Amino acid sequence: MPDLNATHDPARRSWVESANRPDTDFPIQNLPYGVFSAGDGRKRVGVAIGDMILDLSAAEASGVLTPGGADRVFAQGVLNPLMALPPSIWSATRARISDMLDADRGDPTVPLVAQSDATMHLPIFVRSFTDFYASREHATHVGTMFRGAENALMPNWLHMPIGYNGRASTVVVSGTDIRRPLGQIKAPDAEAPEVGPSAKLDFELELGAIVGQPSQMGTPVTTDRAFEMCFGFVLLNDWSARDIQVWEYQPLGPFQSKAFGTSISPWVVTREALEPFRHATPEREKPLLPYLHAASDTNFDIRLEVDLAPAGGPAAVISRTNAKTLYYSTAQQLAHHTLSGCAMETGDLLGSGTISGAQPGSFGCLLELSSNGRTPVPVGAQDRAFLHDGDTVTLRGWCEGPYRIGFGACTGTILPATRRPNGV
Amino acid sequence: MPDLNATHDPARRSWVESANRPDTDFPIQNLPYGVFSAGDGRKRVGVAIGDMILDLSAAEASGVLTPGGADRVFAQGVLNPLMALPPSIWSATRARISDMLDADRGDPTVPLVAQSDATMHLPIFVRSFTDFYASREHATHVGTMFRGAENALMPNWLHMPIGYNGRASTVVVSGTDIRRPLGQIKAPDAEAPEVGPSAKLDFELELGAIVGQPSQMGTPVTTDRAFEMCFGFVLLNDWSARDIQVWEYQPLGPFQSKAFGTSISPWVVTREALEPFRHATPEREKPLLPYLHAASDTNFDIRLEVDLAPAGGPAAVISRTNAKTLYYSTAQQLAHHTLSGCAMETGDLLGSGTISGAQPGSFGCLLELSSNGRTPVPVGAQDRAFLHDGDTVTLRGWCEGPYRIGFGACTGTILPATRRPNGV
Repeated sequence: MPDLNATHDPARRSWVESANRPDTDFPIQNLPYGVFSAGDGRKRVGVAIGDMILDLSAAEASGVLTPGGADRVFAQGVLNPLMALPPSIWSATRARISDMLDADRGDPTVPLVAQSDATMHLPIFVRSFTDFYASREHATHVGTMFRGAENALMPNWLHMPIGYNGRASTVVVSGTDIRRPLGQIKAPDAEAPEVGPSAKLDFELELGAIVGQPSQMGTPVTTDRAFEMCFGFVLLNDWSARDIQVWEYQPLGPFQSKAFGTSISPWVVTREALEPFRHATPEREKPLLPYLHAASDTNFDIRLEVDLAPAGGPAAVISRTNAKTLYYSTAQQLAHHTLSGCAMETGDLLGSGTISGAQPGSFGCLLELSSNGRTPVPVGAQDRAFLHDGDTVTLRGWCEGPYRIGFGACTGTILPATRRPNGV
Repeated sequence: MPDLNATHDPARRSWVESANRPDTDFPIQNLPYGVFSAGDGRKRVGVAIGDMILDLSAAEASGVLTPGGADRVFAQGVLNPLMALPPSIWSATRARISDMLDADRGDPTVPLVAQSDATMHLPIFVRSFTDFYASREHATHVGTMFRGAENALMPNWLHMPIGYNGRASTVVVSGTDIRRPLGQIKAPDAEAPEVGPSAKLDFELELGAIVGQPSQMGTPVTTDRAFEMCFGFVLLNDWSARDIQVWEYQPLGPFQSKAFGTSISPWVVTREALEPFRHATPEREKPLLPYLHAASDTNFDIRLEVDLAPAGGPAAVISRTNAKTLYYSTAQQLAHHTLSGCAMETGDLLGSGTISGAQPGSFGCLLELSSNGRTPVPVGAQDRAFLHDGDTVTLRGWCEGPYRIGFGACTGTILPATRRPNGV
């Protein structure tokens, strides 16, 4: 059963009026953490409430909120110091912030910053980035395109969460422009590859999980423990160059085709805020090994949406799906990640893999939506097989219940490929 | 042409007598950096000289050697602050240290620590770990075993350095025990996989390159620039579980089979120390794309050796090879790594991939040496298909010329698999 407490009470209202609007992503029941700057440019931790930000570094400096005791955790420009504290402190901090913002109990004199006046930054130091492949529908669709229908789902897929190590250095915050990558591309009828800009640039709609608590090298963790290790979640766009990918990925997996940029949303929605929206994983086709079992539901019912806006044009929704369809939950992914004794660290980021539903309008990338370019997707008056320069892709996600737990937006715009440096 | 200077002068001798012995790995022409502690346990940067260590943090504190100016770079317990300084400062610092240790010019009163009294630590904060697959012989042998002779070398292999992102959190310093991993293993005739300890535990003999200078997201670098970005090199053992690997690696590459531990040698041999040993890459079967061209040789002539010691038994040499056989040099690997616009960061570690020669005695892992277990390798009075609990594997490497530039040893001992935690 979900572990609900007063911070989840639908009756709670905030003295921040914009947090009480039914359409806000950030009611008092959400309280996602982010890193912002405003005015002096100093990066600090805040919590989104309605259309405002509560400055936690100010609350910490004044002694109102001191989860780290003498060690300042909110002034360091990343969430890692907070995430390294035990989950009991995450929970106590959330309860305290909820009280601070409560219409009845709170103190309406604590200073707020308008979100419209703030610049958001990458909320965490991404220690390592791992990307999974946990949507059965996505794996089946892509496998069919890359290897044919018979080899679509590899024999291992129904037994373990397949994943690979991604590139941490190019994880960027929503709003950062993404430059179209160069890469080796081989035309099907060409003798040899050439270097050029990707002509099959794609997005991937994913959920990103952030590990707060580390695990020890040599010690696997259970799925239940893995669930507790997760601090929170973001939307994640794993930008992908399909023409580079198809040429490079055998036998060691994707490399440069996914190394040029990964965008995450700036607000980290805590696992605790998502508790009321826990959801079962889909029915198993084959029984799972015991280490992938959990005592309770570990998926989340999160509605997801992608819109695409051509340069200067209006945005059109091109996909709608739900994170509850993931065949393997984050907790299962993380348990599998540690099975060999791999150590997890504070700040590790785990992508779910592209989240696709069974219906065409619910596919999480253009490769699937356009059937590898054969059936371009309508985007207003235009259509798209793959992304054009100037296109802006925006991911949105939210849980719907007595209130809305929203993720805000994860957005990125495609810049033209770089002119090649001398010799490249 | 190699860029040689006074620090490479074979006539230089040190006032540290053990550095003048012809068999030392650490003559005054080497000067590798490491992180050590002794006595008070404080981690600090030192340079190996003969069988001693010059404490650079002491030299910095006394003002004798201050590459970072007011910022202390030798007292932080990792080499990253030094590596983040420009290569001109790397070079000036090396020249200054060489002078300090010079028999004629040096000051024999500067304090030394005996290597036998010191504990060595992981020399760098490993920001990201990337593992390549740059030995043609290794790729051919393993490809034959995993996919058959026709598909041994994928069509892309002769056009690009194939690599994948590894796991940074389990890179450990030589001397750290390695626990036999658990993993999903499927017997060829079994219906489903089971969880158990790997029965095909292997080592991989690799050269590790350490990136000092970062590159910008969105900006590829040339092979010549990539060469300059490399600070130095270590020996690297990419421990691998072959039975886990063969079941998990399709389609996204190795994951848990290589995530449980990677060992590196404690002394970072600088690129500058290796200058006299630059060597051409092997003849090309297919022409390379321009971004993989270099103005001068980018491989190194480094002799490599592996020995294996059963628990309590004597060590036997089981492989001898040379890093000059690598089809793609580190500089080429790094240039390819940035082609998409992937950002490189100070402290990135690049494994060469297993280095195998053409002859059986020159293969860099047991998978090849024992033909996947069919022909066990003699180890003294015993033999080995794969590693047993208690086995110790030691890698050694050195350049031979008018003096010897040695890497010291990279060693690790296998611990039995962990008892499974509840539910795993």
